[in-house]
Amino acid sequence: MNNFIFRNPTKLIFGKGTISQLPKEIDPTKKVLLTFGGGSVKKNGVYDQVIKALEGYDLVEFWGIEPNPKVETLRKAVALGKAEKVDMVLAVGGGSVVDGSKLIAASIVSELDPWALVSNRFPITESLPLASVLTLPATGSEMNSGAVISNAETNEKFAFYSFHPVFSILDPEVTFSLPEFQISCGIADTFVHTMEQYLTTPGQSPLMDRWAEGILLTLIEIAPEIMEDKTNYDLMSDFMLCATMALNGFISMGVSQDWTTHMIGHELTALKGVTHGETLAIVLPATMTVLSEQKKGKILQYGERIWGITEGSEGVRVAEAIACTERFFRMLGLKTRLSELGIGQDTIDEIERRFNERQVAFGERQNVTGPVARAILEECL
Amino acid sequence: MNNFIFRNPTKLIFGKGTISQLPKEIDPTKKVLLTFGGGSVKKNGVYDQVIKALEGYDLVEFWGIEPNPKVETLRKAVALGKAEKVDMVLAVGGGSVVDGSKLIAASIVSELDPWALVSNRFPITESLPLASVLTLPATGSEMNSGAVISNAETNEKFAFYSFHPVFSILDPEVTFSLPEFQISCGIADTFVHTMEQYLTTPGQSPLMDRWAEGILLTLIEIAPEIMEDKTNYDLMSDFMLCATMALNGFISMGVSQDWTTHMIGHELTALKGVTHGETLAIVLPATMTVLSEQKKGKILQYGERIWGITEGSEGVRVAEAIACTERFFRMLGLKTRLSELGIGQDTIDEIERRFNERQVAFGERQNVTGPVARAILEECL
Repeated sequence: MNNFIFRNPTKLIFGKGTISQLPKEIDPTKKVLLTFGGGSVKKNGVYDQVIKALEGYDLVEFWGIEPNPKVETLRKAVALGKAEKVDMVLAVGGGSVVDGSKLIAASIVSELDPWALVSNRFPITESLPLASVLTLPATGSEMNSGAVISNAETNEKFAFYSFHPVFSILDPEVTFSLPEFQISCGIADTFVHTMEQYLTTPGQSPLMDRWAEGILLTLIEIAPEIMEDKTNYDLMSDFMLCATMALNGFISMGVSQDWTTHMIGHELTALKGVTHGETLAIVLPATMTVLSEQKKGKILQYGERIWGITEGSEGVRVAEAIACTERFFRMLGLKTRLSELGIGQDTIDEIERRFNERQVAFGERQNVTGPVARAILEECL
Repeated sequence: MNNFIFRNPTKLIFGKGTISQLPKEIDPTKKVLLTFGGGSVKKNGVYDQVIKALEGYDLVEFWGIEPNPKVETLRKAVALGKAEKVDMVLAVGGGSVVDGSKLIAASIVSELDPWALVSNRFPITESLPLASVLTLPATGSEMNSGAVISNAETNEKFAFYSFHPVFSILDPEVTFSLPEFQISCGIADTFVHTMEQYLTTPGQSPLMDRWAEGILLTLIEIAPEIMEDKTNYDLMSDFMLCATMALNGFISMGVSQDWTTHMIGHELTALKGVTHGETLAIVLPATMTVLSEQKKGKILQYGERIWGITEGSEGVRVAEAIACTERFFRMLGLKTRLSELGIGQDTIDEIERRFNERQVAFGERQNVTGPVARAILEECL
């Protein structure tokens, strides 16, 4: 096991009716910037629950944080927060709203432009307190310090790291009104977050392996039932818990990570606007195929423990494990091939060009360069 | 899934050579009360590492916190800490030292006697900051807010809850010099902590089930290898991580708990001085037997997923799962029967009398009264 430091101070408030607990968590003298997405929280009642819970508080609202939040939008929220001298930020929405709000909270107390905070890759040392009311299980942003921010001007999409939310409220009932596609993408996102921390050198930590496998097995158990009934409280609770646990550091203690699939997926979103979870469903099986020699040991373990694959040669078992993974995403109703989205060689060319230009090398072994990314993307066609 | 609130702010600093990181974590202007057990840290080099790391700090030492820490001992540490006006407590030792230090840290800033803090069961609202350098993986105290304190005068042993340690340093190398019996008891303690949170009503959370099973499977995989080689870094790292993860709240989100085995085990320690881990190895199989009807669903799941038991009637499978559990403890070299320790009916009588007198009812369903405890203990003979 590698040496590691783990700390996750976020208070998780989970369950039915928990939005009403907001006043227990927020000092009534604080001025709160509420941040929202496009308005679905007005339709599903979450907005009303939040406003009712925070009656008497000094609130400022910012609307319009889009999926794959753009720095251009977030700058407006930062200006509003500075002008109104808010004391904290409460993100009400899905992972994009929480991600964007991490940058808003850090930028309000900074003299730098928000994109400088992202692209300079300085560690963030100061931020307003951020909290969240989560409406879409997927990104894990509600219990980690990371965010992914897009720049429309440059067509770039980068990760940045700030502080953990002080608290996050997760009421599984708020997911009942989500469109099926968003739920499917959230399940895929959760699955691939887990795989990015699991599909690495075997034998680093048997416990972390078991915990990652625990999330994968749970998703595989509940996902077909969720496809049948998206308003089953217990199923949606399990999904919501899996999504948070898949990216809060609990399964990555002392082990290496990969993130190849995400790095390539982000480019598909930046260039072609493909929904994040769907990019992952497309790229993961191809990543496994192209890196199958390097990752053989863990793919065999994954095949056996997750899909019960014990028969055949190593090559046969590896291929079957990858096929099971793609079938799982298709069962969710997601596309798993670039050609299904009309994406072809020109996009692949551009992604390779970008990776070459930035001289990046991703993955556990830092060997996923432009040409390797091309091979993975061609496998996705 | 039940509603829950989860927060665990402890910073875990894990790995080789991490004791040297103490100065990064402690403000050099702070006066630190160092608390120790009986002196093994002087033999294994941990004391020297801590003193070297904290060179230049204003330190006060308190020695002699015993296994199953006694309030009589802790009062002396509280008096020392108050007289010396210390700013924080750094526990250097095993779970007993960390447990005792939680009460010391809370009592130094309280006007109440330490036993009043334990027995009054008031929530603790104030404490000096506590941190730890852990030397024995077992109790999980390094990353939770609980402690178990004994009173020699009254022969009582009670749990109390305070604050989480601010940080805990876990260097698996410090475990290499531990006696085999302590390692075996630590593994048993970790196993039973997990079972107390797992062997409850089935179907509450598939993810929490998988994570509890992940700890059990890891222990069963590594324990025989540890019995062969107690100085294998990777094995001891995995054990140390399991011990912390088994009782830091990570496997109990949204699910009920039991703790019958611990409640009965504590009495065996209080009355007969039996080592905590060994009491659990004795009591758990009997608890499973006596409550087998109530716990049948989860015992069958446990038997199948942990021990691969799939053949035979339900009764046969339940009995085999319990037998596997007892065999695991015996493989560790632990005794699993009261008669092996010369403990008989008089102790059973006394424990039933105490439970009846206190009118307690333990367990997930609050149905483990004095007579049920008697039945469990008679099954342990």
